[in-house]
Amino acid sequence: MGLIDNINKLFDHRIRLGIMSILMVNEEVDFNRLKELLDVTDGNLASHTKTLENAEYIKIEKSFIGKKPNTKYIITRVGRKAFKKHIDALEHLIRNPE
Amino acid sequence: MGLIDNINKLFDHRIRLGIMSILMVNEEVDFNRLKELLDVTDGNLASHTKTLENAEYIKIEKSFIGKKPNTKYIITRVGRKAFKKHIDALEHLIRNPE
Repeated sequence: MGLIDNINKLFDHRIRLGIMSILMVNEEVDFNRLKELLDVTDGNLASHTKTLENAEYIKIEKSFIGKKPNTKYIITRVGRKAFKKHIDALEHLIRNPE
Repeated sequence: MGLIDNINKLFDHRIRLGIMSILMVNEEVDFNRLKELLDVTDGNLASHTKTLENAEYIKIEKSFIGKKPNTKYIITRVGRKAFKKHIDALEHLIRNPE
């Protein structure tokens, strides 16, 4: 049993950490708002949201606002549980490593 | 200014996070002890300690215990300061993203 075993490789990147942290405290957030909050490129954000979606940690809702397409992100129950476990492991590591 | 700007890319990996967390609360730790605590391979640990050493966040002391070579790791003042800043940014992100 290593100190970092409960750290989830899928959250082990600052942009994915940022996306999940934001979605933990917001019901839904759209692409542009995430991009603005994290100050990242379209491509970067799209690839990281894809990774989280493939893992079923977030889901995506596509709609139209007027004629404009809009993409919203929502954390899933599985995602919330997995991220909580990751944060607990991170805090344990930082607070009392050994 | 993005939410993740103060997150240090050099610490943005669970093994490097683990190494720094351990060295923050121990004066010095040798290679085998780090390997045991983190449950990682020799190669993995060697490459991550090398990255942290190149950034002057840790320093390495080589000595002999009897006839056996021993490698110890110590956090530097610069490393301690940078890691504290990283942890603060991580905790800010996790606690109150937006």
